[in-house]
Amino acid sequence: MPRWQQGSEERLITAAIDLFAAQGFENTSVAEIAERAGVTNRTFFRYFADKREVLFAESDTLRDALVEQIMQAPRNAKPFSIITDVLASFDWDCLGPRDFQRKRQTTIDANPELLERDLTKINNITTGFIDALKQRGVDAHTAQLAARVGVQLFATAYQIWLEEGGEMKAISKKLKPLLAEVVA
Amino acid sequence: MPRWQQGSEERLITAAIDLFAAQGFENTSVAEIAERAGVTNRTFFRYFADKREVLFAESDTLRDALVEQIMQAPRNAKPFSIITDVLASFDWDCLGPRDFQRKRQTTIDANPELLERDLTKINNITTGFIDALKQRGVDAHTAQLAARVGVQLFATAYQIWLEEGGEMKAISKKLKPLLAEVVA
Repeated sequence: MPRWQQGSEERLITAAIDLFAAQGFENTSVAEIAERAGVTNRTFFRYFADKREVLFAESDTLRDALVEQIMQAPRNAKPFSIITDVLASFDWDCLGPRDFQRKRQTTIDANPELLERDLTKINNITTGFIDALKQRGVDAHTAQLAARVGVQLFATAYQIWLEEGGEMKAISKKLKPLLAEVVA
Repeated sequence: MPRWQQGSEERLITAAIDLFAAQGFENTSVAEIAERAGVTNRTFFRYFADKREVLFAESDTLRDALVEQIMQAPRNAKPFSIITDVLASFDWDCLGPRDFQRKRQTTIDANPELLERDLTKINNITTGFIDALKQRGVDAHTAQLAARVGVQLFATAYQIWLEEGGEMKAISKKLKPLLAEVVA
């Protein structure tokens, strides 16, 4: 995971999110993003295929990092705990401050095309989790339920964190008994 | 919900699914679909905006029908049971025989663009469920968890049904204790 706010790539991401939040995704050009980040258009395209990808730059690295942690979890850990612990313990701040992440999500939610892309990335992560659990010897149905429901628990925790702040671990810990009660 | 295999629309859907399965989504033209269904191209476009929409024709009607049933569930029913009961009790055969639904899903899974659309439709349904539960007076966090996890339980049941057959109600009933155990 690249550290937050280092070089051109991080400056481009910050510039893009600020502009999307201020004037809308549709109304923002690559040239404006590059200018605000103090780099050329060419530099922009060295990092991103298009304007949309700025919002999903970390997605594949993120999936790989999370899958690796799932594979390294203690041998006797329970599948659902592995998923929720890995998601809750991850250093989400390395993706940027909460205010930044909230702006990012607001941009995505306001644009059907971006939402489609976001759902696809989340689905890729979920599929990666299911495969990782199966590789650990978990049976197919349990792997599917643990990964899918774990990701949904996290999605709910993430939304609460975006809206109300707090600590991701604490929010996730509070949601787990609620979930157990809901599905009982 | 329109009954299966009645008029031009249903014939177009069957023709499209058969062609997609036999020769791929990309390699199938609207003209071929119309010809196989015994109608004109103009008739095709009276029912569908494009080739992709043939696969998602029922999606909005389906969401509305399911949301209505959630609203009509008994006053004292528990949120998660409402979601899973409504999903498991729905007459899924009205969307076509299992073999047809399996071909449809195989086509979707093989094409990233179709998968994006499918995930979006499922997300719309989930959002509809969350809103319906909130309207019934369920608190926001419980509504989110019940709807999101209920849809994931169903997605798992649906996949098992596509692969192994059986009765949706019975599969869903078997998964519920497994889920309770997984998240415990």
